[in-house]
Parts: sequence; structure tokens; C-alpha cells
Amino acid sequence: MSNLENKIEALGLSLSAPKAPVGNYLGCKRSGELLFASARVSDCRGEVGTEVSLETAQIAARDTVLSILAIIKEDIQDLDLLTGVLKMTGFVRSASNFTEHPKVIDGASDLLIQLLGEKGRHARTATGVAQLPFGASVQLDIIFQIK
Amino acid sequence: MSNLENKIEALGLSLSAPKAPVGNYLGCKRSGELLFASARVSDCRGEVGTEVSLETAQIAARDTVLSILAIIKEDIQDLDLLTGVLKMTGFVRSASNFTEHPKVIDGASDLLIQLLGEKGRHARTATGVAQLPFGASVQLDIIFQIK
Amino acid sequence: MSNLENKIEALGLSLSAPKAPVGNYLGCKRSGELLFASARVSDCRGEVGTEVSLETAQIAARDTVLSILAIIKEDIQDLDLLTGVLKMTGFVRSASNFTEHPKVIDGASDLLIQLLGEKGRHARTATGVAQLPFGASVQLDIIFQIK
Repeated sequence: MSNLENKIEALGLSLSAPKAPVGNYLGCKRSGELLFASARVSDCRGEVGTEVSLETAQIAARDTVLSILAIIKEDIQDLDLLTGVLKMTGFVRSASNFTEHPKVIDGASDLLIQLLGEKGRHARTATGVAQLPFGASVQLDIIFQIK
Repeated sequence: MSNLENKIEALGLSLSAPKAPVGNYLGCKRSGELLFASARVSDCRGEVGTEVSLETAQIAARDTVLSILAIIKEDIQDLDLLTGVLKMTGFVRSASNFTEHPKVIDGASDLLIQLLGEKGRHARTATGVAQLPFGASVQLDIIFQIK
Repeated sequence: MSNLENKIEALGLSLSAPKAPVGNYLGCKRSGELLFASARVSDCRGEVGTEVSLETAQIAARDTVLSILAIIKEDIQDLDLLTGVLKMTGFVRSASNFTEHPKVIDGASDLLIQLLGEKGRHARTATGVAQLPFGASVQLDIIFQIK
């Protein structure tokens, strides 16, 4: 098992079973040291700030990272090939008066840094949208660094 | 004519006339083997799911790829320099209860794979927004691989 | 002082004081010649087209570039290491009948080109969203080229 997966277990978490993309696209694609991971949505459904609390949305963001890692593992096999995180984009489905998108996406950023250390620190965009595929609460895509 | 354009014709489609950017930006910009193509919006206007059907939106997504290729050709001349697709981001203008954004963007992904084969397969983000420039139904940007 | 900062002053503008990220992320992160700058939101708050005019939103977009440059300087020290702009993504918080997102983001593109010349020209995505962190009017992220 990779070191990264050991760290996931040590946090009391686990890689979710990889889910096939819901359309005609790949889980991830590589160019040089860049690995573009496709966006995944959270299993958690509902509008953040009204139907879903901030705390629940943070956990949804965290778990979406695990979902992304699970599908990447299907492709690259060894998650220890990931050497860092470059950029994450997080969309939060939220009412028009909700403004705490960064706090939601911190749920994902915190986990990436716990798993990859200082190299897990990353540039980020966190923004709000009125709807997401399948009515999900959170959607993330990530550009990883890969060796 | 490039092989890629031959394939477009064989599908009964054609490159649209390139449209100048509607603001102070380039059609595309290169860094090494990455070619960042600016977002283009569909000629198709209206909200998907209410004013525009899923089927019409899929065709709009497909045709937006042709619009992006037309403007790239203005810049790089030979579309056969494109060796693959790394990442596509698709925004679908849709009502808050619409959740089939991935199916809409499949219209674009399917064409890229028809044109570029396995190397046309890509990572993707498909998401929903409440409005788009010019009231368009679909907006796409693409990171291509270029030789 | 860097040439880029001299140009900012010659335009009668100034780098804003760098603001720490509002969440667990970096101001920017580098991979090779790519520098991913995290999204920043404008100090200007309110919905564009209703609460905020087009002209005010353009200035907000311009000033957000200065905010991004200020935080990058904290990291790379010398802004003359920036050799160009590859891609900018701009989100405009706007009502569902607002369609002039490209004109808003031109406020940012114009400044980048004034500061970096032809190499400041870039690929771009400008889109609309129903809400942004802190109720801001504009949000930008940028991929720079760095030597």
C-alpha cells in the first residue's frame, strides 16, 4: 500500500471505491509533470447554507478528494507518484447570499496538506454556483504534480 | 487540408468561420506542449432545461468545439499540430434544478475523441452557471497538447 | 523596484498591500515555467449590472490584478520574473440577465497587457456566477509564465 494510503488510514479515512466517470471523459490525464484530475462531485447533495450546513459541506469537500484519489489510483496505480498539488478549483452549490465558499473548500485543502505535507499546499479557486451535476453540494478538480 | 479537418468533413460538419475574440484576449496561447484555448460560447442562446433541450445543448457543445478549432487554426495554421486534449471545462447555463451538465458536455467530448482518437480523451469539469456571456447556453475552454 | 512596478506607478496605480489567503491555500504555486496564482476577489462588493455598474466592475477587475500581483511578489520577490500571461479565468457575480462579462474582465486584461506588453496577452475564460466569496463582484485567477 502506498504511503499516501497509509496516511489516509491513519486519519481514520479510506479511499472510496472508484466511480467511473459519468460521461465521456477520463478520470485524469497527464502532460509532463502535470496530472489533470477530472472534476468529481460530492455524494452529499443539496444547497450549502440552506439545505446543507457549512460543517457538512466541509466534510463533503474532504471526501471528494478521496473520491478523486480513488479514480487516479485506477490509472496510475501507485499514489506515491503524486509529488504535490498545484491548483485546486472548488465549486460550492450555494444560495446567492452564501459567501463562505473558502471555508467549505478548506475541507479539501486541509486533507491534501495532511496527506502530502508542504508539497500538498496549493493555489486555489473557490467559487459559488447555483447548481451542480446531480444536485451535488461540492465539485472539485485538481492539478497534481506527478513524477 | 489537415487530417483533422478531413475528419470534420467526413462527419458532415465544418469549421465555422473564426470569430474574433469579443474582448482583449487571444484565441489561444502556448506554453511548451500546452495550448490554452480561450473559452468560446455557443451560438445557441437560452437556458438549458427550460428554453433549450438537452439534445440541442449537446449539439451546441459540439459546435462550440468547432468554433474553438477555427480560431486555433487562425493562430497555428495546421490543426494536425494538435496531438491531444488534456482538459476541458464546460459551463452550462441552466436552471437551478437542472443536473445533467455532464450529458451536455459529452456533445463536445464525443467530437474531440472522434477527431483525435484515443489522444482526444481528456480530463474534464462540467458545471452549471446561472448566466453566460451573451446569454449563451454553453461555454467551453480547452487545454490541448501541441507538438 | 521592478520594471513592472515602475509601470504600475506610471499608470497612477499601486500594488495593494498583500492580503493573506482567506483559507488554507497559497497565493501562488509554481511548476516549471507555469505559475498558478490563486483566485482573488475584488474589494468591490455587490452584483454587477444591478448593484454595481459595468464601469465600476471593470475597475474592480483591474484592481484585482494588482491584488494578485501583490501576493505573488510576497512569494517570488521580483515581479520581473514574470515573463507573460498564459490564461486568466474571471468570474463576474451578476444577475441572470447580465451578459457583458467579457467587458468586465477586459478591465483586468487591459492592465496585464499594459504591464507586460505583447507577452501579457493571454487566453481567457470570462463567465457569470450567482454568488462569490464575501459577496465580491469579481474573482480572477491567472496562470503566469515565469522564468
